[in-house]
This record gives sequence, structure tokens and C-alpha cells, in this order.
Amino acid sequence: MAKKKQKEQPIILVTNDDSIAAPGIKALVDAVKHLGRVVVLAPDKPQSGMGHAITIGHPLRLNKVPFDGGIEAYSCNGTPVDCVKLAVDKVLHRKPDICLSGVNHGANHSINVIYSGTMSAAMEASIESIPSAGFSLLDYSIEADFEPGKKYIEQIAKYMLSKKKQKHFLLNVNIPAVDASLIKGLKICRQAYAKYEEDFIERADPHGKKYFWLTGEFVNFDKGKDTDVWALKNNYISVVPVQFDLTDYKLKTQLEENW
Amino acid sequence: MAKKKQKEQPIILVTNDDSIAAPGIKALVDAVKHLGRVVVLAPDKPQSGMGHAITIGHPLRLNKVPFDGGIEAYSCNGTPVDCVKLAVDKVLHRKPDICLSGVNHGANHSINVIYSGTMSAAMEASIESIPSAGFSLLDYSIEADFEPGKKYIEQIAKYMLSKKKQKHFLLNVNIPAVDASLIKGLKICRQAYAKYEEDFIERADPHGKKYFWLTGEFVNFDKGKDTDVWALKNNYISVVPVQFDLTDYKLKTQLEENW
Repeated sequence: MAKKKQKEQPIILVTNDDSIAAPGIKALVDAVKHLGRVVVLAPDKPQSGMGHAITIGHPLRLNKVPFDGGIEAYSCNGTPVDCVKLAVDKVLHRKPDICLSGVNHGANHSINVIYSGTMSAAMEASIESIPSAGFSLLDYSIEADFEPGKKYIEQIAKYMLSKKKQKHFLLNVNIPAVDASLIKGLKICRQAYAKYEEDFIERADPHGKKYFWLTGEFVNFDKGKDTDVWALKNNYISVVPVQFDLTDYKLKTQLEENW
Repeated sequence: MAKKKQKEQPIILVTNDDSIAAPGIKALVDAVKHLGRVVVLAPDKPQSGMGHAITIGHPLRLNKVPFDGGIEAYSCNGTPVDCVKLAVDKVLHRKPDICLSGVNHGANHSINVIYSGTMSAAMEASIESIPSAGFSLLDYSIEADFEPGKKYIEQIAKYMLSKKKQKHFLLNVNIPAVDASLIKGLKICRQAYAKYEEDFIERADPHGKKYFWLTGEFVNFDKGKDTDVWALKNNYISVVPVQFDLTDYKLKTQLEENW
């Protein structure tokens, strides 16, 4: 009987890009572990900024690892996208009911969705028709407080498990780093046109050879009140529905008429 | 006088993901070198499948390198996206007039646009409001014949240099690997929903420890005749206009009405 019950539970695949050891992934598991059978498969080291990278030039290793609360968990030497592929093909041997990625230490709003390993893992699941969501907290600190976001993560996961959704369902969820009492709730948004204005720090190494190190300042060019950046600034949790069809249909029509 | 003339020439930034040593980048430069001042900045080693990865955890090195025809060229130890950022900030000290990426050895149609370092480099330029295009030939071979595509690359680069375009202009161009006489010309398309059905080869290493290696079979789920996959199958050069606003507006409306 117990075995049968377990079979009927929804499977929730959890991954991230900050590695299996990050506090954020523990917070995510903690927020949803009562909603189904949670299986964790995450990178064995930080993979921030990996975007939608996949590993094609070398083999991947998969290791079963201990995880808080006796949750089934594995680490892998690949990218976040590799983790989702491996989980489906070699661990679960079927598609999970939903895939949740994060909670990322740091913002993935606006253009960050493109660079984010957290969101790329969720997008990979969405390409495979697995409803998925990436979660990020606007706090890079290792001591970041994930508590205020947990009930909203649970709310979103419940929604994802309960409703029939379109074939490719993907959310980019960002949580402001403020006290629980200040959070105004969820707000459905569009991706802001805001980005990092890059610069490189230019220095000489101990052998006198020049090197560059990426740095940058965040600038919001988008004054819309329907954007994720606006929502977060106003203490909402931003929820941006995301797609992977990158076709620019407006430009397509223009080019068809005027090449 | 000569100096003034050089200043007035458009600057064409060329990059790729197969590395500075790949035949494809030489073909791309050859196709457009008469249209302006070409500057090459490309990875010092292959970076296929890197997606929109950026290097944040270690420093970048930049080296001036020789290139066919005396073209100004640099190699970098970073990703394709790093190359574009470094070129704008540390080599050109201004935005180039256009950015061209490729020619990639292998297809970047359909869902490949998400994983492709070639397209991510072009997208990075587009985010910076630099009109850009990524080019790929449907032939992975080191002996691939880039000649038939050259006149179309030239045609696209001329178009990009001549017309006033929308702020973010980005094209994903794929060239079929067929004889020049068979190519029917350019076709403006949308991104097909076609992808790799992944599998992992599972083997034991010389020490008896298990490893996995990504493999996969390409499957087209999209029967539309307006897609890049259809165009390529019918010997057209596919041109997909690409955007980086990933908001799924249809799902956004649905969620706003029914959360």
C-alpha cells in the first residue's frame, strides 16, 4: 500500500546553479517537500552565469549524496542544463510532474534570464514539456534569508501541480530581499529591458601580464510599471512567464515586406 | 587623408564559438572584408554549446594574433559572449557598426539557437543595440565547404550596413550544405519546434567507475512550412529574426486572468 501511494505522488525535480551545497536549494526543497516526491539533482560546484551551456566534450559523473530531511539527492559535474537532462534520462527514467530551479542567490530578473544557469535549467525542462519555474532571491549573501519567500514558492508549486497548463509552461520568479511583512504578493510581469553596463577591471598579474575581469553596473532603461524590475522595486514577487521561441515576429513581418 | 578615410569605414566585429583557428571564421571574414574595417575577436579554443555563458570567476586574457589577409585579430580565453564584451570595451572602445558571428561548423536552427555560442555572441551584441547576425553551415566537418554561402553572407552584411534598422536587430542565418547551384536563396522564417531527443551513453571508465556522455537524435515536431527547418530541407538559406525579450505574452495574459 505504502509503495502504491508513493507511486501516485507527483515527482518534483529540484535543481539550481549555485551547487548542491547552496542554502538556496535547501530552502526550495523545504518549501515544497510535502507536495510530492522531491528528487534533487544539482551541480557539484557553483555554475552561475553558465547560461544554457551543455557538456559535450567530456563525460559526466553522477553521485548520490546526503541531503537534509533524507531527500533523494544527486550531484553532477555538469551544468544546470546537464542536470535536468541526466535527471530525466538516468535517474527518474520519466519526466517529473514539475521542475523547480533555485532558489538562486542573486537576481535573475530582466536580461539576467539569458545568462542565468538557474533559468536555463528550468527552460530545459520546459522544452521537454515539463512545467517549470526558476526562483531567485535578490540577495547574493551566503546568509541570505530565504524564509519570507517560502510560502510564495509553495503557492506557485501548488498552482503548477493543480492546473492543466499549456504545453510549455515556464516562470521566472524573483523575490525581493525584504522582511516578510513588506512583501505585497505575486505580480505577473514582463521582462524589463534592463542590463549590466559592463566594464572590465584591467590589472597586471604577478608576472606583469595583463588580465581583465568582468564587472558592471546595473542600469534599468525600461520605465514600464508592468516589468519585473518595477515589481521588485515595489516589494512584489515578480513572476515573468517565459518562452523559448526566440523568433522576433515583428521584425519577421518587416523583413518579409522590405528585404 | 588615408587616416580620415579609415575612420569613416564601418567597423565589422567578427567572432564565433569554434575558436579563432576554425575555417568558418576565416570564410566569414573573407566574405565581408571589403565592406569595412574588420576586427576579429574570438575564443582561443572551441566553445560549442556554451550558450550565453559569461566568465565571472576568473580573469580573461587577450592576445593579438595573426590572421589571413593581415586582418586585425585577437584571441581570448573566455566564452563567445565574453569576446563581444571585451571587443567593445577594450579593443574597439566603441560599438562596432555591425557584429557577425560564425560561420559555425554545424546547424544552429530551431532550438539550437538556445545552446549556441555563435548565436549567444550575436545576441550579446544585439542587447548592446549593435545590429548582428550569426551564421551557421549544416556541416560539422573540418573540410566543410563555406564557398556557396559567402555571397549570401555578403548580401546580408550589406543589408545590415545600408539600412536604418530597429534598435535590436538580430538574425539567425543557417546555410544548407549543398552545392551552390542548388541553393534557392534567402528565406525569412520562424524558429521551428525541433530538438534533440537526448540520451546518455553509459560506460565504465578504466577504473570501473560509471560515466555518462551526452548524445541525441534530432527530431522535428513542427510541420510548418514557415520554419527554418523546412527552409533548410528545401535548400533555402534560413533567416530567423531573433529577440531577447523572452516574455511569453500569451501566458502572461492567461495568468493575469486566471491565477
